[in-house]
Amino acid sequence: MSKYWSNIVKEIKPYVPGEQPHNKKFIKLNTNENPYPPSINVISAIKNAANESLRLYPDPTCNELKEIVAQYYGLKKEHIFVGNGSDELLAFSFLAFFNPGDTIIFPDITYTFYEVYASLFRINYMTIPVDDNFNIPIEKFYGNNDGIIIANPNAPTGIAVHIDSIRNILEKNISKVVIIDEAYIDFGGESSVELLKEYPNILILHTLSKSRSLAGLRIGLALGNGDLIEGLNRVKNSINSYTVDRIALIGAEEAFKDKVYFEEVRAKIIFTRKAISKKLKELGFMVVDSKANFIFISHPKVHALQLFKKLKEYGVLVRHFNRPRIDNYLRVSIGTDEEMEYFYGVLKDLLRPSPNPAR
Amino acid sequence: MSKYWSNIVKEIKPYVPGEQPHNKKFIKLNTNENPYPPSINVISAIKNAANESLRLYPDPTCNELKEIVAQYYGLKKEHIFVGNGSDELLAFSFLAFFNPGDTIIFPDITYTFYEVYASLFRINYMTIPVDDNFNIPIEKFYGNNDGIIIANPNAPTGIAVHIDSIRNILEKNISKVVIIDEAYIDFGGESSVELLKEYPNILILHTLSKSRSLAGLRIGLALGNGDLIEGLNRVKNSINSYTVDRIALIGAEEAFKDKVYFEEVRAKIIFTRKAISKKLKELGFMVVDSKANFIFISHPKVHALQLFKKLKEYGVLVRHFNRPRIDNYLRVSIGTDEEMEYFYGVLKDLLRPSPNPAR
Repeated sequence: MSKYWSNIVKEIKPYVPGEQPHNKKFIKLNTNENPYPPSINVISAIKNAANESLRLYPDPTCNELKEIVAQYYGLKKEHIFVGNGSDELLAFSFLAFFNPGDTIIFPDITYTFYEVYASLFRINYMTIPVDDNFNIPIEKFYGNNDGIIIANPNAPTGIAVHIDSIRNILEKNISKVVIIDEAYIDFGGESSVELLKEYPNILILHTLSKSRSLAGLRIGLALGNGDLIEGLNRVKNSINSYTVDRIALIGAEEAFKDKVYFEEVRAKIIFTRKAISKKLKELGFMVVDSKANFIFISHPKVHALQLFKKLKEYGVLVRHFNRPRIDNYLRVSIGTDEEMEYFYGVLKDLLRPSPNPAR
Repeated sequence: MSKYWSNIVKEIKPYVPGEQPHNKKFIKLNTNENPYPPSINVISAIKNAANESLRLYPDPTCNELKEIVAQYYGLKKEHIFVGNGSDELLAFSFLAFFNPGDTIIFPDITYTFYEVYASLFRINYMTIPVDDNFNIPIEKFYGNNDGIIIANPNAPTGIAVHIDSIRNILEKNISKVVIIDEAYIDFGGESSVELLKEYPNILILHTLSKSRSLAGLRIGLALGNGDLIEGLNRVKNSINSYTVDRIALIGAEEAFKDKVYFEEVRAKIIFTRKAISKKLKELGFMVVDSKANFIFISHPKVHALQLFKKLKEYGVLVRHFNRPRIDNYLRVSIGTDEEMEYFYGVLKDLLRPSPNPAR
């Protein structure tokens, strides 16, 4: 605590991201990175873009990327905002659409960064408890709020919300902004992009960090109607005119162009998720039905924290959240088949009835 | 104006960056970019870093870059914060060290983004008028404020403040944070880095966009005592854990390692600045004494806006600020000798007494 800090900085509890080990020997199943590399077209485009033009500022409007993304989703350029990862987009959205003193709502079990943004910008929030199976009670999001944010699929559970539920929420909150955080949408959920044409109050957030294997480049997208996008532009131009660099723009463009590779990668991850889920259930695990690139698991006999520690000891990093209702769960990113095989082997050994109880 | 916008987004007047033409034929002397490319080591390191590791998040602590920068300035890693350009650092600093309702002070003629940050975060500001020669009245910064920001060299004038003046300001405001924005320090000003060891209240901002030719990569640095840096970390971790991507980190590291090239580039720019200043004075221009990579000029006979338009017509972009006291000035970035020769030629033709007054 420093006397030089502002009050909010004294009070705030910053978000704590998953561990990024400097020791590369770990199997990293803790930050939902993609186990497969980006498209080779991304790599070669970046190599080409490493040239003298780096002396110049990037295009602050991200025009070319917007054109490509617009075409991909069947939208117009005016519907798209480009940011430095979807976390930056969340921060900008909270500033752009919610006032200090407003009360926004989101599920009690969700991305924990939402409460940090709310605190930072002095926005009140109320959490809506998910049910015992982690399902979001949709009707509780009908009115009585100054804004809504829902992750779909939700994190860290992986549970997806049906598009009709999103439609109902939009309908019942037509004068408020409803943010749908679709960071994990490409792994089996149903995107709400088509609802943009019907509803002026939906803002959809995407990231290239997950399904497009570009966590290292920092690119997120916001999709919404023109005046919401303009609100985000106003925030950006009051903070940092150029948040996305030349290399990231070019990498993102190529990632969107290579649809074949994108489809291949996400199909592989979905396949691996199904396979590991089945095997873990056979080991007695409760496996939440995930539409994301991670699974949320719990075992009736061994506490999650114990599993976490054992996995780390064996070189596997997963995520444990020391929070009410979910402290006996682990969030495990979907790695390659080989990585999941090793992860499964560690758990299997651990859960095997020991011949020597003293051990 | 949208009913979905927050109050602050309705009120704010965002910063307007210099034009980034999509038409590449312009000689761009309007956004203070470096006319010389980054070090070839930067280029080749980026080409090497374009690999499958882009699927992984960057190091959120920017550890390696901090080590290199710390060594460069004779500081410790704990004195360094890395951000997405110095604009992001400014935004974070305003949030970290100033409270809503506080009154901060800065010169009336300076980087116009400061007032945008203050407005965005509901911080009051008072501007201290520079004198008729654009010099900052140092004594007016002694006390009676909740924080100070001074660009040294100042923008858009280019005038540098002596380190003893900075020392006096720090001394007289020991309980407040004093931000010294040294974006242009490498072109002839005197850095206040050495004052870090004496004063707990100084925060120095640097950028790699100017002297290191990396505007396209987005990297800024904040240098200050441990608790100021920790305050910035708390803000960053409440907004976006990873603001600097893998490629940018690697590019920045190489830029700092190649001291020889850095010295060569900045010497060339200083040389060109002196040469063009001299020639413009011979044409009758008032040329403010600049320690930056731009000059601030005015002509007694032709209005700046007219010059601006004529230059644009001839393919040269410079910056004109439509603001009190400086609307008859142009800010001109220092380009290559060839570019400055062309720029000079246009002005010379323009100012030449016309043989045909009707033209």
